[in-house]
Amino acid sequence: MSRTPYLGLHVPPRDGARRVTAADIVASVQREVGAGALPAGSRLPPVRALERQLGLSKNTAQAAYDELVARGVVEARPREGVFVLAAHTLAPAGASIATAPLLAVVPPPLARMDAPAPGALALSTVFVDPDLLPADRLADCARAVLRDRMPTFYDPQGFPPLRAAIARRLRDRGLDVEPDEVIVTTGSQQSLDIVARAMSARVIALESPVYSYAKLLFQTLGHELVGLPLDPFRGLDLAAWERALAARPGLAYLIPSFQNPTGYSYTSAELRGVLALCAKYGVAILEDDWGSDMLSDGEHRPGLRMLGGKNVLYVNSFTKKLLPSLRIGFVVAPPALVPTLVGMKRLSTLGNAWLTEAIVAEFLDRGYYDTHLAQLQRALDERYTACLAALDELMPDGVTWTRPGGGPTLWLEVPERVNLGALEAHLARRGVTISNGSVAFVGDARRLHGFRVAYAFLGLEPMRVALTIVADAIRGALA
Amino acid sequence: MSRTPYLGLHVPPRDGARRVTAADIVASVQREVGAGALPAGSRLPPVRALERQLGLSKNTAQAAYDELVARGVVEARPREGVFVLAAHTLAPAGASIATAPLLAVVPPPLARMDAPAPGALALSTVFVDPDLLPADRLADCARAVLRDRMPTFYDPQGFPPLRAAIARRLRDRGLDVEPDEVIVTTGSQQSLDIVARAMSARVIALESPVYSYAKLLFQTLGHELVGLPLDPFRGLDLAAWERALAARPGLAYLIPSFQNPTGYSYTSAELRGVLALCAKYGVAILEDDWGSDMLSDGEHRPGLRMLGGKNVLYVNSFTKKLLPSLRIGFVVAPPALVPTLVGMKRLSTLGNAWLTEAIVAEFLDRGYYDTHLAQLQRALDERYTACLAALDELMPDGVTWTRPGGGPTLWLEVPERVNLGALEAHLARRGVTISNGSVAFVGDARRLHGFRVAYAFLGLEPMRVALTIVADAIRGALA
Repeated sequence: MSRTPYLGLHVPPRDGARRVTAADIVASVQREVGAGALPAGSRLPPVRALERQLGLSKNTAQAAYDELVARGVVEARPREGVFVLAAHTLAPAGASIATAPLLAVVPPPLARMDAPAPGALALSTVFVDPDLLPADRLADCARAVLRDRMPTFYDPQGFPPLRAAIARRLRDRGLDVEPDEVIVTTGSQQSLDIVARAMSARVIALESPVYSYAKLLFQTLGHELVGLPLDPFRGLDLAAWERALAARPGLAYLIPSFQNPTGYSYTSAELRGVLALCAKYGVAILEDDWGSDMLSDGEHRPGLRMLGGKNVLYVNSFTKKLLPSLRIGFVVAPPALVPTLVGMKRLSTLGNAWLTEAIVAEFLDRGYYDTHLAQLQRALDERYTACLAALDELMPDGVTWTRPGGGPTLWLEVPERVNLGALEAHLARRGVTISNGSVAFVGDARRLHGFRVAYAFLGLEPMRVALTIVADAIRGALA
Repeated sequence: MSRTPYLGLHVPPRDGARRVTAADIVASVQREVGAGALPAGSRLPPVRALERQLGLSKNTAQAAYDELVARGVVEARPREGVFVLAAHTLAPAGASIATAPLLAVVPPPLARMDAPAPGALALSTVFVDPDLLPADRLADCARAVLRDRMPTFYDPQGFPPLRAAIARRLRDRGLDVEPDEVIVTTGSQQSLDIVARAMSARVIALESPVYSYAKLLFQTLGHELVGLPLDPFRGLDLAAWERALAARPGLAYLIPSFQNPTGYSYTSAELRGVLALCAKYGVAILEDDWGSDMLSDGEHRPGLRMLGGKNVLYVNSFTKKLLPSLRIGFVVAPPALVPTLVGMKRLSTLGNAWLTEAIVAEFLDRGYYDTHLAQLQRALDERYTACLAALDELMPDGVTWTRPGGGPTLWLEVPERVNLGALEAHLARRGVTISNGSVAFVGDARRLHGFRVAYAFLGLEPMRVALTIVADAIRGALA
């Protein structure tokens, strides 16, 4: 198909001249060949290309090539082009190009964060069963927005109708948010990324255990991390939190509803207590509110932004609730911080694809989202109830679990003498995946000895099969 | 529509008990109200919600609420819910939540990087005229891929058929690339981002002047920058480059074809010379090859990855050539570096939207891309020729310009005594936007005194109008 690529020629005009002449071309080629920079067999630019590139009048390039052929420097091969004849070959570089020196900090076991393998008894995933997600209605919305011409450009802050729809939705839920305070990101992960990379303070406090990709992100960006102990059975140890926050980290990253990985939700007293501590010690807050509309009866939970006001940075996404492959999340920031955060987003990705932002805007505008959430929550309620009943029936004494009342997961705590790593490996051989979550803890020794159990991903039958296998394995480990 | 949000209750069972009783609920509510943590008027969870959340048997929550009503702690309002009655109000936090302490490093004038305003005589933009881009064929491809069910998940490294199509295309052009060596990113910007944030070395060498969003990105990530002087009239000063590279920066970021902002393309001698210097001093290379298939006669240019082998990191994108709003770019890396780069991408965005990746894969699979590039190049050739002719006719003595032979821009150099800032402001008032590019220089004083002129964005008529205004303004400044 394509001919031999040719090597570009740099042909400067003689000093002061505006235009290149045939003599300039001849001199340039001879100089480069002489320097060994045009090896034998190299193709020179085609006559038409050279004329166009250099803005030459017709025949200038041909005259130069004729002269070079006459001098024995090049040969013209019919229908192939003009090639360097001289026996000069390029001196070998002597060494090959170095590999880029990359950090040794590689995010640990990525498989854990992957989409569950089809058919796997994925018992710890935070994802929702794909059968409960509105892929077909999203495709309808996509076809609808494609009836308009695809725009050439995109809004670096996010498609304005999507930002307006998000602000409207949050206002309906008691958050005072304007469209200009919303920055759409590639999932909520990019929201965490742009906040963390824009931080001038270098210390971030976060729950322990915590969403491990937040912890790894902050670490990789060079932040020092401080753990805020969270126990899904006993709640927040606010005395320990006060000791940590009194050291005045720049930011606290908090997941107050259906926390990942524990499934815990702050009580109202804890929400108020955390706000008071952060106000007392001047600690800014980044609230990751992914779970507050995952409450099982369709109600939603109060949160830090709702109670703490505009200075609380607020992150949410449509990944779990709508469709992971859309990659749409957002951060809400006070107006003074928006330009810096948009700037950081631009340095990282410039902006999101218009199309997926337009699809979610259409989905929200049609009112599909509330209908979908209500259906989703009914389905999750049924699974939650079945999960609790199965645990009650199947689990041996000494095993305890939380009753989060919503979200996709609960926390299952097993006796200390069960080796979690061995249990995870044993279950993997039986086709059941759990995450023992050691990567999720921040700082000091872990206080919990268990793992999350998802009731959002598996149907009732496979969930019961998986829980039976887990119960048998724990019973075996305790025997 | 939605009722008053309720405040979540944390109700621990008494020590050792598996289940919560009505007495536990009463005790919890009284404790929180007593502590001022449930202010008067707060709504408690609905009975059904509380029962489901706590896994209670029927009537337990109702019995607890009845008891609390009897004690005068709460009141039940018909069809509204259960509300706290006690006169306790929450102690005010005493101080409001702090604003997040963000970096003062804000990317400078963002407007410059924005999409040109409709109707503006955008004379310096690197974007291609939207009328020359295949928005309708892309929409056809979108409708085609939407006939399949939208998948739930996405591939963090990029949609495999897209990676295969990209590798095939690069192999056809003489680059030895496997699909597993391709990482799809949100535009090429994210490729630069993940490489720069994965770098263990802290010094990056780059052309001066250079694409300013690369410079700002590297700076913001804390890298030290070293400038490699580039003059589009005289080429690379390889002696100066050797002095800079001898200090062994970790990486050289290079744009060898139609460099942004100068429009310059390395000669073959310069490609070889740069590779030899980088090999000699152990400097890794990140090649930004956005322009090599923008050559005006449909040929493509050799580059650093082609000549330097697999260790050269190679970045390209479909932004300029296909449609900016798609946000699809990619980096090709040697196999040993792929896991770290994918890990960094995951920490930043987890992955791209499936849909836009599938659209570009479909577009490539249908063979639309080569057809489109050939049409585009014919249109750009016509504009390039017209631009050169207009400059020849219109520009006063002392003004010079390059003849890049392809790409979207050339460099126009004006006499030193023309104040570029004043010229930019004057032209803005006449509706013509140029970029004097001061932000694009790295390190020492700028060697160039001019700006880029785009012939890819404006049609023949508006381009001539814009160039006439520029020529008049320069003539005025020189008078």
